[in-house]
Amino acid sequence: MADVAELQKRLKHLEEELKAEKQKNQHTVRTKIAEMSSEVVDSNPYSRLMALKRMGIVDNYERIRDYTVAVVGVGGVGSVTAEMLTRCGIGKLILFDYDKVELANMNRLFYQPHQSGMSKVEAAERTLKEINPDVEFETYNYNITTMDNFSHFMDRIQHGGLKDGVPVDLVLSCVDNFEARMAINAACNELGQNWIESGVSENAVSGHIQFVIPGETACFACAPPLVVATKTDERTLKREGVCAASLPTTMAVVAGFLVQNTLKYLLKFGDVTHYLGYNALQDFFPTMSMKPNEQCDDRHCQRQQAEYKKREAANPKPVVVEKKEEEVIHEDNPFEIELVSETSAEELSAAEGPRPKLTEGLRVAYTVPAPQNESDADNTVETEETSLDDLMNQMKAL
Amino acid sequence: MADVAELQKRLKHLEEELKAEKQKNQHTVRTKIAEMSSEVVDSNPYSRLMALKRMGIVDNYERIRDYTVAVVGVGGVGSVTAEMLTRCGIGKLILFDYDKVELANMNRLFYQPHQSGMSKVEAAERTLKEINPDVEFETYNYNITTMDNFSHFMDRIQHGGLKDGVPVDLVLSCVDNFEARMAINAACNELGQNWIESGVSENAVSGHIQFVIPGETACFACAPPLVVATKTDERTLKREGVCAASLPTTMAVVAGFLVQNTLKYLLKFGDVTHYLGYNALQDFFPTMSMKPNEQCDDRHCQRQQAEYKKREAANPKPVVVEKKEEEVIHEDNPFEIELVSETSAEELSAAEGPRPKLTEGLRVAYTVPAPQNESDADNTVETEETSLDDLMNQMKAL
Repeated sequence: MADVAELQKRLKHLEEELKAEKQKNQHTVRTKIAEMSSEVVDSNPYSRLMALKRMGIVDNYERIRDYTVAVVGVGGVGSVTAEMLTRCGIGKLILFDYDKVELANMNRLFYQPHQSGMSKVEAAERTLKEINPDVEFETYNYNITTMDNFSHFMDRIQHGGLKDGVPVDLVLSCVDNFEARMAINAACNELGQNWIESGVSENAVSGHIQFVIPGETACFACAPPLVVATKTDERTLKREGVCAASLPTTMAVVAGFLVQNTLKYLLKFGDVTHYLGYNALQDFFPTMSMKPNEQCDDRHCQRQQAEYKKREAANPKPVVVEKKEEEVIHEDNPFEIELVSETSAEELSAAEGPRPKLTEGLRVAYTVPAPQNESDADNTVETEETSLDDLMNQMKAL
Repeated sequence: MADVAELQKRLKHLEEELKAEKQKNQHTVRTKIAEMSSEVVDSNPYSRLMALKRMGIVDNYERIRDYTVAVVGVGGVGSVTAEMLTRCGIGKLILFDYDKVELANMNRLFYQPHQSGMSKVEAAERTLKEINPDVEFETYNYNITTMDNFSHFMDRIQHGGLKDGVPVDLVLSCVDNFEARMAINAACNELGQNWIESGVSENAVSGHIQFVIPGETACFACAPPLVVATKTDERTLKREGVCAASLPTTMAVVAGFLVQNTLKYLLKFGDVTHYLGYNALQDFFPTMSMKPNEQCDDRHCQRQQAEYKKREAANPKPVVVEKKEEEVIHEDNPFEIELVSETSAEELSAAEGPRPKLTEGLRVAYTVPAPQNESDADNTVETEETSLDDLMNQMKAL
């Protein structure tokens, strides 16, 4: 009998201890909120956002709940991007990444040391759901550039929206390599899906965002200045001993620009910037607009261009000369490039590898991967390196 | 006997469950790292920062461990600022704030719902220590503007550095009100302490940073455009029913600019920008430089100006015309103001209250509090409202 009493006592003690530990883990997550309210009380997580209406900035802030955004890559820029959208109360987020959290990521915002080893999408979803349980999540722990995954990726862009299989409202590219950018570009050209590309330089002190409207603005394959470069294999980024620098500052600024322009686009306020650069050494912010390249190698880009022209011809706009287009400075300039100087002269000189000859005022922003091995080609999306060389030659011939 | 076996079985089960819960809570915090290494392995949290040396951006990144930064205000801008510096491996952070975490703060980065009710400095320290145990912290949960706290605040600025009571290396102002800004300004003028002021507008779509070198650049009391305004009591920010808007995007961009310029200043790379604005609606980034006002009401500012002039006279610089100073555009311009347009015309028209007449090209960026009650005056630092009116009149008379 004494045994049983003793055991029961221990049992009770353990039960209490377990309850306490569970409570510790149960981070009093806030309950879901059925409707966004403007009420100014400390307990309302949306009061400071709904105040944008009272301040005359946004007409219908609560509409943000109707939108779905796909974030491709949840690393230094993508994780902060997803967190901002989550805190803003976006309707739904679809996250794609195939990486794991490592201590080497701790120099950028968002992930914490105790998440090391978890997949980035899982770690991100857990944190974001705790921050805002009102947001719907869909996550995919895979590489979008393999054949099967690319088809599935296209399907989620086309049918992942909040209402009965409609497309997502915007795709945000936060990937760190050329191949993945070309995959997103190919998918969005085929689907006519608007997207915003983002990037940070290998030396961590410059970055940019670029808004792509298929057929209407230059796509990622259209414009040499954004893709050409020093012939360095950019996959070196992942190799042991060759490691790109990164800073939480530059990445948060680029994520801030990305989500700010996403909010302006979705909620229809302010001006959505087509290209915005950030040069951290001089605090210089180049902007430009680029029309699509009529000879773009992506046939879907060409198709979108033709369809856009047809639509424009059918619905001629009142003659309002756009400010952006007035600013073109080169007379003979088929791409309508105004300015690309994301990297400074000193940064360039520090870069390795041969530099391509570019028209005055243009600078390289990306490295192009070396030709792929035959064995790799089977399970990856075509990256069309040759077309870049063609475009380079066209540029040189200008 | 059956009873005992049953109880033992339950005991074993509970023990296992408890072990699992404890593991979940035990956030495998990373161990301290004695020396920053450039080794490129997944387990090195500093590899991507030390890579700034290999990339030719920073000469001695590891020196960041020698520096101490004080962050005043750990709200929307300050918390992200502190997180960035922590992830960058700063030597020591001193945090000041008297606020508590609320669900109403969840529309900005950093704090999480389960921290609601905790003091901001305590919640921040806990999270930041888990992110990087190598950083030293000192936190103060008080309002720096009361008499006693202000003396203590001054003492920590003067003696809070890493080595034996030396001053901190930089003060970052991330506060949300005029009174606290004037207190930081007064302290830094008296101590000759360099600091960077930051701010975000009430409508959430613009912000700025301003680097103050006492005696050499305009202080916060010197320059009307940065402090004057509509006579709206800015303490309305805290009143029920009158709530300023805020966005995680704008605040992260401002924090990014603030810490990027902090890194450039401490580690001596790139150019430290004296004033950088961010207009989110148009993605416009005004910059300017301002010399101190010879009639500044802060006597310590005047003293610093005199000492700076003496130093300059004793050590004449080689004739290198600074680029920034070349850009001055007004002929008759004693403040050497180049451009202030942080807020756009439409934002201004949306603002309440009477608008002061300003020189062409200038815009108001702050509201001025109404005169304080006699009862408040005892325990707060003098806010010198009258001097602003004087400066306004001087401006109008130009």
